Amino acid sequence: MKKPQNVPNLYGIHVANIILEQQPEVIVNLYIQDSFKRSPNNTDNINNERINNITNLANQYGLSINYLPKIKLDELAGNLQHQGVVIQCKANTILKVRGEDELKSFYQDKLDADSNYKAFILILDGIQDPHNLGACIRSAEALGVDCVVIPQNNSVGLNSTVCKISSGAALLLPVFQVINLSRTITWLKEQGVWVYGTEMVSDIRLSDLDLKGSTALVMGAEGTGMRKLTSSLCDQIFTIPMVGTTESLNVSVATGICLYEVIRQRG
Amino acid sequence: MKKPQNVPNLYGIHVANIILEQQPEVIVNLYIQDSFKRSPNNTDNINNERINNITNLANQYGLSINYLPKIKLDELAGNLQHQGVVIQCKANTILKVRGEDELKSFYQDKLDADSNYKAFILILDGIQDPHNLGACIRSAEALGVDCVVIPQNNSVGLNSTVCKISSGAALLLPVFQVINLSRTITWLKEQGVWVYGTEMVSDIRLSDLDLKGSTALVMGAEGTGMRKLTSSLCDQIFTIPMVGTTESLNVSVATGICLYEVIRQRG
Repeated sequence: MKKPQNVPNLYGIHVANIILEQQPEVIVNLYIQDSFKRSPNNTDNINNERINNITNLANQYGLSINYLPKIKLDELAGNLQHQGVVIQCKANTILKVRGEDELKSFYQDKLDADSNYKAFILILDGIQDPHNLGACIRSAEALGVDCVVIPQNNSVGLNSTVCKISSGAALLLPVFQVINLSRTITWLKEQGVWVYGTEMVSDIRLSDLDLKGSTALVMGAEGTGMRKLTSSLCDQIFTIPMVGTTESLNVSVATGICLYEVIRQRG
Repeated sequence: MKKPQNVPNLYGIHVANIILEQQPEVIVNLYIQDSFKRSPNNTDNINNERINNITNLANQYGLSINYLPKIKLDELAGNLQHQGVVIQCKANTILKVRGEDELKSFYQDKLDADSNYKAFILILDGIQDPHNLGACIRSAEALGVDCVVIPQNNSVGLNSTVCKISSGAALLLPVFQVINLSRTITWLKEQGVWVYGTEMVSDIRLSDLDLKGSTALVMGAEGTGMRKLTSSLCDQIFTIPMVGTTESLNVSVATGICLYEVIRQRG
C-alpha cells in the first residue's frame, strides 16, 4: 500500500460517522483496525458496535474497507487517538477554507430565510492550540452557534486534530477564516450585530449583557486575550465573574459559559 | 545526578509559582532549563520573565536551582510540557489523598466558621482522562467551588498531569477521594445539601434549578455519564439544553457551565 501524501486524514469514530452520513462522496479510503473485524467474540464490545455501525454505513454506500494493523493506523493518524478508524479524504474537500465573502453570503442567506434572524456568532481571536480551537468548535456546535469566525493569521487553522477534538463539529459548523478580522467585526456591526468581547477585568458581567438580539461573542487567545484592535472594536467588554486564584478559565470552558448564557437568555 | 524515583514531579511555570509561594518547604529539587539561565539577551522573552520570577522566589527561600538541559527536564516531566521548570517534591506531601473523614471535618469547619454556610461542592463520578479532571478542577477553583469529590475507584486520581492541566488549582482546592461515593452523597443530603446530577436528557434545565442553597453538582464520566446508583441518589436530574448534533459537551465545558450557573444565581 502506498502511503497517502498531502491528503487530509481524519480519524475517530464520531468524525467517521459524520462523514459517512453526510459526505460519503469525499472518502478516498476507509481504514479500520484489523482487530475490530467482525467476529462472534467481539459482539459485547461497545467500541466494536460503533465500528460495526461504520462498516454497515460503508457497505450501504458501496465503500470498500481496508483493514490495517493498529501500527499503520497510528501512522496514518499521526499517532493520535483514532479509535480504530481513519478516513483518507479527497484533498481540499473537507475542512475547506471559507473566507469573508462566504461569510457575507452565509449571513445574507440566513436573513433571506428569516427576516427576524438573530445572529449567534462566535469569534475566536487568535487561538493557538488546536485542542482549544477544536473544543470551542465542539461547544459552539452543541450550543447552537450559527458559525465561527477566526482570523487567517495569528490563529491555528482547521486541521485533522481540530476536527477530531471538535468531535466532528468542525465538519458540521461553518468556520470562516477571514484575512482582516477588524474589517469583519466592523461589517458585522454595520449589519446590526452586537459585538461583545470578553476580558479578564471589566465592571460588566456576562449576565449583565442583553444577549437576546443579534450577537457576536469574541473570545481572546490563551493567556494574552483579544488583540487590542479587536477589543477596541467591540460594542461592549464584559467579564465572567471569577473568585479563585487560578489565572483564568481555559478558553474552551470560558467559551462554553458565554454561549450557555446566550441560550439561557433566549430560553 | 541520580534520577529521582517514586517521588512526584510537578512541572509548569504556574504550578511552580504556587508551590514556591505557598509551600516552598515541600520542594526537594527545583530544576530549570539551562537555556533559561539569566542573560542580557533574554530579557524580552516573556517566558524568561516568568522563569526569572521563579528564580527570584527560590533565592528568597534559599532554595538552590539545578540547571539542566531540556532533554533531562523532558525526562523528569515524562515528556509533557514543563515550560522549562520541574519541581521534585517530598513524597506524599503534595497532592495528598484526602478521604471521607477529611471531607466531614472540612464541612464541619465551614459550618463552624459560618453558620449560614451554603455548600458549593463539585462531585465528579468517574472521570477517566487526567486532562478532563485537571480542567474540571481548574474551573472549579476559578469559579469558587469549596471542594471537589471523586470516587477512589473508577476515576483517574490526582497526579502530575492533573496538577499541570489544572494550572495548579489541584494544589489549592481540596479534592476528596472517597471509597464509597453513594455513602458520601447520602451523607451530604443528610447535611441539607441539595444534590443535582446532570444527564443528557431531562425535562429540567440547568437554569430551572434553584442553586442558591447548599448545592452539590454531580457530573458523570466522559461518554457514559453518571453511574446508575449515583444518578438514583440525586435529588434532581437536570440537563444543559443543547441544540446541535454533536454528541455532547466535553465534561470540563459542561462542568464550567454548571458552576457558572451557580455563581450567576448567587450574584
